[in-house]
Amino acid sequence: MPLHRFYYANGLFSAQDKLEISERITKIYTTTGLPAFYVIVVFNEVPSDSIMIGGKPATNFVRVVSQHLARTMDTYERKQTVLNALEAAFGPYVKDRGLDWEIHIEEHDRDTWRLNGINPPMPNTDAEKLWAKENKAIPFEQSKM
Amino acid sequence: MPLHRFYYANGLFSAQDKLEISERITKIYTTTGLPAFYVIVVFNEVPSDSIMIGGKPATNFVRVVSQHLARTMDTYERKQTVLNALEAAFGPYVKDRGLDWEIHIEEHDRDTWRLNGINPPMPNTDAEKLWAKENKAIPFEQSKM
Amino acid sequence: MPLHRFYYANGLFSAQDKLEISERITKIYTTTGLPAFYVIVVFNEVPSDSIMIGGKPATNFVRVVSQHLARTMDTYERKQTVLNALEAAFGPYVKDRGLDWEIHIEEHDRDTWRLNGINPPMPNTDAEKLWAKENKAIPFEQSKM
Repeated sequence: MPLHRFYYANGLFSAQDKLEISERITKIYTTTGLPAFYVIVVFNEVPSDSIMIGGKPATNFVRVVSQHLARTMDTYERKQTVLNALEAAFGPYVKDRGLDWEIHIEEHDRDTWRLNGINPPMPNTDAEKLWAKENKAIPFEQSKM
Repeated sequence: MPLHRFYYANGLFSAQDKLEISERITKIYTTTGLPAFYVIVVFNEVPSDSIMIGGKPATNFVRVVSQHLARTMDTYERKQTVLNALEAAFGPYVKDRGLDWEIHIEEHDRDTWRLNGINPPMPNTDAEKLWAKENKAIPFEQSKM
Repeated sequence: MPLHRFYYANGLFSAQDKLEISERITKIYTTTGLPAFYVIVVFNEVPSDSIMIGGKPATNFVRVVSQHLARTMDTYERKQTVLNALEAAFGPYVKDRGLDWEIHIEEHDRDTWRLNGINPPMPNTDAEKLWAKENKAIPFEQSKM
């Protein structure tokens, strides 16, 4: 569900960093009952001449584009809580190393979302709990269909 | 119009696979009268340490982000029809090979969309039919302007 | 704020082209009072077998995906003005070289947007003017919080 794309110049993160960042982001969602396999993180590394900030090479900068599908954030406060959690997750690899960063989260329609061909279960249903427990997409009776 | 971005670890698709996937996706749209050149497919291959699912390397997984501009999907049923068509298009290269996948489709504002500097014609107009026939952007009288 | 992602086959732009394109795009926004460091441009170069238009390799084509957060474009006319400005900015490197292109602009929620951990100031506030002058994110009193 959540898809997090990180854009930055080659070399800012090691393979171990990327693993740890994605583990820490995953925990944000599993803590709230979402299946771990919903959480995708893609590290889009580009050559240092291919990412610019204010018209200059952004050698010290990470741009995060996050997309949510399974849950909507209904209030301003809820949105800040999620931003806080994400920034805390990648903070040790970004802020604590003196890098600059920018993030935004988008919410998109869950009716046009599928995993392995299945429209995912609605929030907090038995089916969603089973998906979380088994950590995979399992066919189930869709009341909506 | 439709922009389809595929994210996955290096090596899952050959050049021939990518060509066939994009041909099959294009047919979905041309069948409904859209110009072939509206259909863009970008394969964003990343090193295997740069795409993660649930905090683990996603070596067997394809994430598709689709964006629509020329047509809106008005009903839940219509949305499922489009998802079915897309999943059937890339199924032989993904599902049939035992890969996992996830897809979502976004719809964006056509008023901020242009091809070669031209705001594309409205659905099913003579201008759109001409663009489909000639398979390129051709200046035309814009009633909206 | 504005994030511009360019997708195209390797080799269409030199390092100098990328620098100049991002400088020219940045000027669009700084002219209206936005901080230069709001403007991010990412050049996503892919192998020539990894970007397709209408089911064929897109060797002569640039796809731009732009995202806005700090300002909303309220009218159709305003949207066209922004598109005109962006196309004029990259025109010498795209249209004037005989390349085809496509662009769309998305607008996303500023409540889920942060720079260096700070929710950016509202349009035309003193804080925004200070960010523009200093060209960096500076903590300030948030009336919304």
